[in-house]
Amino acid sequence: MRKLLASLLIASLPAAAAVTEQDIQTAQKLRDQALSSPLAYDLVKSLVVEVGPRLAGSENNKKAEDWAVAKLKSLGFDKVYTEALTIPTWTRGTIHAEIEAPYRQHLAITALGNSVGTDAKGIDAEVAFFDSLDDLKAADPKEVKGKIVFINKRMARAQDGFQYGTTVGARSRGAIEAAKLGAKAVLIRSVGTGLSRFPHTGMMHYQDDVEKIPAAAVAVPDANLLEAMVKEGKPVRLHLEMTAKPGPETTVHNVIAEVTGSEKPDEIVLIAGHLDSWDEGQGAIDDGAGIALAAAAGKLIKDLPRRPKRTIRVVFFAAEEVGLFGGKAYVAQHKDTDLAKHVLAGESDFGAGRIYRIDTRFGPKGDDLSAALNKVLGPIGVDVGSNQAGGGSEVSLMPAFGVPVVSLRQDGTHYFDYHHTADDTLNKIVPAELAQNLAAWVSTVYLAAQNDSPLRPIPEGDFGE
Amino acid sequence: MRKLLASLLIASLPAAAAVTEQDIQTAQKLRDQALSSPLAYDLVKSLVVEVGPRLAGSENNKKAEDWAVAKLKSLGFDKVYTEALTIPTWTRGTIHAEIEAPYRQHLAITALGNSVGTDAKGIDAEVAFFDSLDDLKAADPKEVKGKIVFINKRMARAQDGFQYGTTVGARSRGAIEAAKLGAKAVLIRSVGTGLSRFPHTGMMHYQDDVEKIPAAAVAVPDANLLEAMVKEGKPVRLHLEMTAKPGPETTVHNVIAEVTGSEKPDEIVLIAGHLDSWDEGQGAIDDGAGIALAAAAGKLIKDLPRRPKRTIRVVFFAAEEVGLFGGKAYVAQHKDTDLAKHVLAGESDFGAGRIYRIDTRFGPKGDDLSAALNKVLGPIGVDVGSNQAGGGSEVSLMPAFGVPVVSLRQDGTHYFDYHHTADDTLNKIVPAELAQNLAAWVSTVYLAAQNDSPLRPIPEGDFGE
Repeated sequence: MRKLLASLLIASLPAAAAVTEQDIQTAQKLRDQALSSPLAYDLVKSLVVEVGPRLAGSENNKKAEDWAVAKLKSLGFDKVYTEALTIPTWTRGTIHAEIEAPYRQHLAITALGNSVGTDAKGIDAEVAFFDSLDDLKAADPKEVKGKIVFINKRMARAQDGFQYGTTVGARSRGAIEAAKLGAKAVLIRSVGTGLSRFPHTGMMHYQDDVEKIPAAAVAVPDANLLEAMVKEGKPVRLHLEMTAKPGPETTVHNVIAEVTGSEKPDEIVLIAGHLDSWDEGQGAIDDGAGIALAAAAGKLIKDLPRRPKRTIRVVFFAAEEVGLFGGKAYVAQHKDTDLAKHVLAGESDFGAGRIYRIDTRFGPKGDDLSAALNKVLGPIGVDVGSNQAGGGSEVSLMPAFGVPVVSLRQDGTHYFDYHHTADDTLNKIVPAELAQNLAAWVSTVYLAAQNDSPLRPIPEGDFGE
Repeated sequence: MRKLLASLLIASLPAAAAVTEQDIQTAQKLRDQALSSPLAYDLVKSLVVEVGPRLAGSENNKKAEDWAVAKLKSLGFDKVYTEALTIPTWTRGTIHAEIEAPYRQHLAITALGNSVGTDAKGIDAEVAFFDSLDDLKAADPKEVKGKIVFINKRMARAQDGFQYGTTVGARSRGAIEAAKLGAKAVLIRSVGTGLSRFPHTGMMHYQDDVEKIPAAAVAVPDANLLEAMVKEGKPVRLHLEMTAKPGPETTVHNVIAEVTGSEKPDEIVLIAGHLDSWDEGQGAIDDGAGIALAAAAGKLIKDLPRRPKRTIRVVFFAAEEVGLFGGKAYVAQHKDTDLAKHVLAGESDFGAGRIYRIDTRFGPKGDDLSAALNKVLGPIGVDVGSNQAGGGSEVSLMPAFGVPVVSLRQDGTHYFDYHHTADDTLNKIVPAELAQNLAAWVSTVYLAAQNDSPLRPIPEGDFGE
């Protein structure tokens, strides 16, 4: 009888469970606590109010780093430190553009990051109009030489923002392709959804053997205006003046905070956002929300009665917008030390919309953690999705080094209405949605820190972000 | 038997109907034609593309008048003419505002129409923060003297935009009340709904015996920023520079077109919008849509096989935004001539949202027309509403002279998201909604031109717009 009872007890308990029932209960408590926690919202609000925009390498970026160190210390993390890296800088300067013919009209426009400016008197030229980067690449140089190229590629709305990838080429490579054909400058229809007259900035690139020409983005209504004039069939002439210019290199910092693990402190669960933002908005959804979620998740776990088994590392990456510099530096600085000890990594950098799915990138022994995630996240509307996660922004550099990652998929239906505009402001974040994000992140990070089954080796392949 | 048949025939026909069955059928055809007509959209698009913003008295306003005369002639109206009036002018100049303490931040801001500027070095002062104009009026002068007043009155969203009336006082009278208490300048939270970072301009007033101080509106997210800092309890200091200034008087014109009545050409149905706009947007919803609807309704009626009984007069009023100058001039110029012959008037000046109700201001003999309107408009979702219409903008000046009016109520749920901002652009107009507006207007105007029962005398009272 006693033997039978013992057998029953053993059968009813998970045999050497990688994630215990108690871990799951704790994750559920953290989840529920997060749902009513103002912490993430308070953090992004503090950053927005006390610092605001923080272009990588700018004076305000330095302020943001100081804010971050002070804030993470005040939250009581076990360690707070920074890691330096060098980045090129760029200044926006001023920009002014007019349609001169057939009808004189002002254009709402913004310089693209990394662009050179015009000379002082500006550029006056006819427009060579294309529907896409591919159309430009296929153009006869005679149609382009001496002109201002306009690429009118539209971006449609989608929950997962998938059209960003199919549209952003005009922004990132437009200047190269236009210059190859002899253009004087390139303008693009803003890479954004929505009807707003705010132009969308973002990074553009040059190529060493191709002339550097000015590049800027026109707001959607103004792109429509240009398009209407072009369709009338008369030549459209523009005047463009801009003083943007690359600057000297400077030093910026990844800002890092840790909750030290109680059993395996050398094993790391990394949760991240990026601290820098574009300079025209408040950087609330991109990516104040991300760093607030990372810090708040770490803080809620730190406040548990017991430290988690493994270390939680909160990383505010530097200089994401201008080329993932913080992420590249982190990988370079950690690949020979502790990158192999990263048991899981994930980054939030897609706004603050409700999370509807978690994609993973776990090895064959990740099933216990997946089952635990399913149990804890299901009730807040988050399904466990594919096993082809990229990890998000900087973290997407890590699977190449074998790091298991998660991507918590946010509803991005409206993300690209505000992305990279002056209109990326705090009031675009819905506090209850941000709290749902925190609930998903904090329970994911906690379960990963407790999980005793290895998530490596991860499936191979490039699955994007 | 023949006598009985005759009686039946008489009974089944309206006895001396003010609006005939044939009039109703024609109105229904016009309505259905309008629902699929691109005309109104094409007209506002033409104005937006070929002219754009057109501040009263500006060079572009002159272009708009030329556009209007040419366009109305090209549409084939029987008469096209202008009526001159004199208005004061104002130039916006530049504006720049920063929060200097406790946290340095740039403010998205716009000068209010009619405001004076600052001197060249600008104003540096502490903020005196109020939730409403009433709170400011009740303030101790010691709390205001030497400061920059900020009025943070919020405006909530509503289909009929009723909160505009309860909010706009801070804009129109804020400078007077702040100056009375010794303030150096007044800033207001933008009078607008929505989350956008575009500040909302609009007219403000001075009072002869009170010092003229600069007045400007801050975008909603920036008002939130200021509010957050004020609530931290530390002094908030601002720097404000603006070069706005009143200019000399100039001449502008109401632009008028007519379809001459076939039976009673001296009796007039007036349909209107205003041609001027604020200078930062395209003036698409305010009020490109209104003048497009007026012109398109007139054009569809003109194209009927027979001219309507009475004259249709399409009026593009001048200088509405800066003080209803075109409407005041029209009333002054017509009160001793044909204003008494205006059988009905109405104006569209609330965007381009779907019309859901028609309010009237008819005398006791207006029932036939009301019944006809109900029959024709019901199928496109327009109910006949109260008999307390104001007529809209300039037309609201006419009931005081006994003119019967209609107000076609538009869904303004999103009107104040864009109103008086740079974001008032063509893509805020949904073509199908504008076509529904045209259907309602063209059938209303046609029925009024055919209606043989007098709509005078109208009910007395001031029912607003």
